[in-house]
Amino acid sequence: MIKRRFVVETIRSVFELYGYDEIETPAFEFLDVLTAKCGPEVKEQIYAFKDKAGRDLGLRFDLTVPLARLVASHPDLPKPFKRYCISRVWRYEEPQSGRFREFWQADADIIGSAKMDSDAEVIAVAISCLKRLGMKNFSVRLSNRKILESIVDSAGVERESWLSVFRAIDKLDKIGQEGVKRELERLGLTDDQISTIMMQISKRGNLDAVEREVNHMLTSRGKEGFNELAEIISNLGLYNCSEYVIVDLSLARGLDYYTGPIFEVSAETDVSVGSVAGGGRYDNLIELLGGPPTPATGISLGIDRLVEVLSEANMLPSARTLTQVFVAYTSPSLKKEAITVAEKLRSEGIRVEVDIMGRKLDRQLKYADAKGIPYVVILGPREVAEGVYRIRDMSARKECLVNLQELLELLKRSSLMTTCI
Amino acid sequence: MIKRRFVVETIRSVFELYGYDEIETPAFEFLDVLTAKCGPEVKEQIYAFKDKAGRDLGLRFDLTVPLARLVASHPDLPKPFKRYCISRVWRYEEPQSGRFREFWQADADIIGSAKMDSDAEVIAVAISCLKRLGMKNFSVRLSNRKILESIVDSAGVERESWLSVFRAIDKLDKIGQEGVKRELERLGLTDDQISTIMMQISKRGNLDAVEREVNHMLTSRGKEGFNELAEIISNLGLYNCSEYVIVDLSLARGLDYYTGPIFEVSAETDVSVGSVAGGGRYDNLIELLGGPPTPATGISLGIDRLVEVLSEANMLPSARTLTQVFVAYTSPSLKKEAITVAEKLRSEGIRVEVDIMGRKLDRQLKYADAKGIPYVVILGPREVAEGVYRIRDMSARKECLVNLQELLELLKRSSLMTTCI
Repeated sequence: MIKRRFVVETIRSVFELYGYDEIETPAFEFLDVLTAKCGPEVKEQIYAFKDKAGRDLGLRFDLTVPLARLVASHPDLPKPFKRYCISRVWRYEEPQSGRFREFWQADADIIGSAKMDSDAEVIAVAISCLKRLGMKNFSVRLSNRKILESIVDSAGVERESWLSVFRAIDKLDKIGQEGVKRELERLGLTDDQISTIMMQISKRGNLDAVEREVNHMLTSRGKEGFNELAEIISNLGLYNCSEYVIVDLSLARGLDYYTGPIFEVSAETDVSVGSVAGGGRYDNLIELLGGPPTPATGISLGIDRLVEVLSEANMLPSARTLTQVFVAYTSPSLKKEAITVAEKLRSEGIRVEVDIMGRKLDRQLKYADAKGIPYVVILGPREVAEGVYRIRDMSARKECLVNLQELLELLKRSSLMTTCI
Repeated sequence: MIKRRFVVETIRSVFELYGYDEIETPAFEFLDVLTAKCGPEVKEQIYAFKDKAGRDLGLRFDLTVPLARLVASHPDLPKPFKRYCISRVWRYEEPQSGRFREFWQADADIIGSAKMDSDAEVIAVAISCLKRLGMKNFSVRLSNRKILESIVDSAGVERESWLSVFRAIDKLDKIGQEGVKRELERLGLTDDQISTIMMQISKRGNLDAVEREVNHMLTSRGKEGFNELAEIISNLGLYNCSEYVIVDLSLARGLDYYTGPIFEVSAETDVSVGSVAGGGRYDNLIELLGGPPTPATGISLGIDRLVEVLSEANMLPSARTLTQVFVAYTSPSLKKEAITVAEKLRSEGIRVEVDIMGRKLDRQLKYADAKGIPYVVILGPREVAEGVYRIRDMSARKECLVNLQELLELLKRSSLMTTCI
C-alpha cells in the first residue's frame, strides 16, 4: 500500500494541478446502464447480481460509464465538467501479471467539449503523471474510430459488423495477425476485405506519412478523423508533448462507446511494459444513457500495472512502514512515560508506535526491526529520571542520548529523508 | 468529495501518527467467510452473487471480516499487526440520513494482543480523530460481552440463545424498551428473565457505581469483564481520554463476532448526532476463519455520518473546487501563451484550469465564477506584449496587473488560505 499510495497520490496531485475535481460514484450500477454500450465481451465479464428488491445490478467495469450516467442525470452541470476519479473496477478476466479481477483506475475526463483541445489536454495530463512518477520513455499511440470506420467502410464491410471488426482488431496484441484474420473470417469478411483492412491498419508513423499511405481510400469521415488527429498533435505541442506521439492505425480500443480519437500510452522503464493508460472520445454515451447530446473525452491510467512496473524498476518507496519511531520501555512501570512521550511526538506530527504488549525490551526491539521502523526510543528508569531520551538508529545500530528538542529535530529531519508521501 | 476527502485524510493522518499501516483488501469475499460470524440479520443484508465459475461471493459488509481472513491466511505477520483501512462496504438496509447501502468506514485494528492496552489505544485513536476534525464533545460508551454473558447466564437463559438476546438488546435505540421486551418474549424468555435482564442492562454511569449495582449477580466471567473495563479506563487515562468514558450495559453491538470489550463513540456538534464510531474485541474470529488462535480488537469510524454531521455544523471546507486559478484569454491566437502560463504555474504546484473551449472572454469568466474558482488570469494581446498578468479576484471583483513573480506569490499565499488538504 505504501507503493500504491505513492502512485495514487502522485496522480491525484497532477489531476488537481490541471483543474480536475474529484467525484466518486458507487461500486455498482443498474446492469442495463453498464451494458448499454460496452460490447458483448465486456458484458460477459461483468459481475452481475440482483439485490433483495430483485433489481439487476452489476459491479462497474470502468469509471467512464458511471460518469456518463451521472452527467446524463445532471444535465445542468457547468461545462466543461472536468472530473477525476481514482477507484476500483471489476472484470471477470483471466488474471495475469499486473491484471487482476479487481483493479484500480485513475481517470481524468472532460465532459461538454467537442474540441480536440480536450483530447490533447487529457493526453498531456497522463504524460505529466508518468513524468512525475519518474518515467522517462513513453509513447502515445493515436488513432481515430472515424479512420477505422473509413477503412472498413471503403473495404465494403456492412455497418452492422463494424464494431465486431474493431473488437477483433483490438485483439491484435493478444492473438497476433493470424488470430485477427481468423476472427475477421468468422465475421464473414472476404479474403479481399481482410487483406485490405490488415494492410491499412498496419500503417504506423507520423501523421503525414500515415495519411499519405491510406489517403486514396479515405472517406470524408476518414479525412475528418485525420484532421482531428492533426489538431490533437498540434495542441500537444503546446504542452511539449508532441514528440511522444505516433499514429498507429492498428489501435482500436476494446469498448464500443468510442466515437472519435482514441489513444494509448505505453511506457518503458528498463523493460518495455506495454500500455499503462488509454482512452478516447465518447460523444454518444451520455445521450445514450438518457442525457442531452454531450461530447466527452477522457483517459484512464492503470494503477496496478503502474505499481508493478515502477516497483520492478525500483522507482517506488521501499519503506515497509510509514512509522518513524517505536517507543520502547524497560519496565511496565514506565508505560505512563512511554505513552506520554509518544503523544508528545504525535502532537508534533511524528508517526509513533508504542509497545502495547508489555513485552521485554529485547522483544520490543526485535519487533521494531521486523516492522522496519527506523528509530527506537528506549525509556529506562535512568533516562526517565534524568529527562533524556536514548534513541537507537536501527539500521546503523547506533544509540545516542538526546533531549526532547534534539529528539524532535532528529525525527523531523529523518522524516524528510525516509518518507515520500 | 472535498468535504469527504478532508475527513478521510484527517483520519488517515491520525491512524498513521499512531503507527497503523494501511491495507486494502478486495470488495468481495467468499460468501462463507462473510457469513461465518455475522449473525442472521447482517447475513440477510449481504449483496451476494455467484461469479462465472459458480463460486458464491458477497460484497463485504465491514472491514473487520476481510482483515481477519487476511490474517488467518498469513499467520506469520509480526504481532501486534496494526492496520488501518479507509474504504467502502455494503449492506442492503433501509437508507436514511447518513446511512447508505454503500458506505465508507475507517478502521484501525490491532491483531495479536490480548492486552486491554490495545482496546484503550484504538479508542484513543478514534477520539484523536474526532478532536482533529474539530469536535469537542463526545462520549465513549463502554461495555463488555462478558458482562452481557454474565447477565443472561445468571438470568438462566440457555447458552444457544445468548447471541439472539444480544442482537435484541442492540436494537434498543431503534425499537425502544418495549420493542426489546417483545423480541425477548419471541425468543422464549420468561417475564422474570426479561425483567431481570432489562433491569441490569439499564445500568449506566461510572465503572465502580455500575459494578456495585450488578455485582450480586455477576458470574466470574462477568467479573472478568469488569476488570477488563477497569484496565481500559485506566489506560485511557494515559491518553487523557478517561473523562469521555461512560459504562453502559445496554450497549451490545450488532455483530456476532465480538467476544470482550465493546465500545461506541457518540459525538455532539451543535446537535447530538449519535454514534460515529464503534468497535470491540473479537478474539475468536481469526481462528474461526482458519488461522491460529489470535486475539484482536479494533474500532471503526463511519465516514458518511461524520461528513454529514460536520458538514451540517459548517466544520468542513466549503470550497466547491480545489482549482486556484483559471487562465482566460481574449483571442484564440493567445492559446499558446495561455497554456504556457498554465504549465508554468503548475510546475510551481498551483492548480490551474485553462480554457479549452475557445470561448469568448465573458463566457470564460462566467464559467470560472460558476465553478467557484477564486482567481482568473486574463491574457490579452497587450498583457502578452508587455509580459504582465492581469489577475482578477473573483469574489472581491478586483483586478490588478502583476509580474510573474508577484502572480506566483499571490497564488501561493491564497492557497494557504483557501485549501485545507
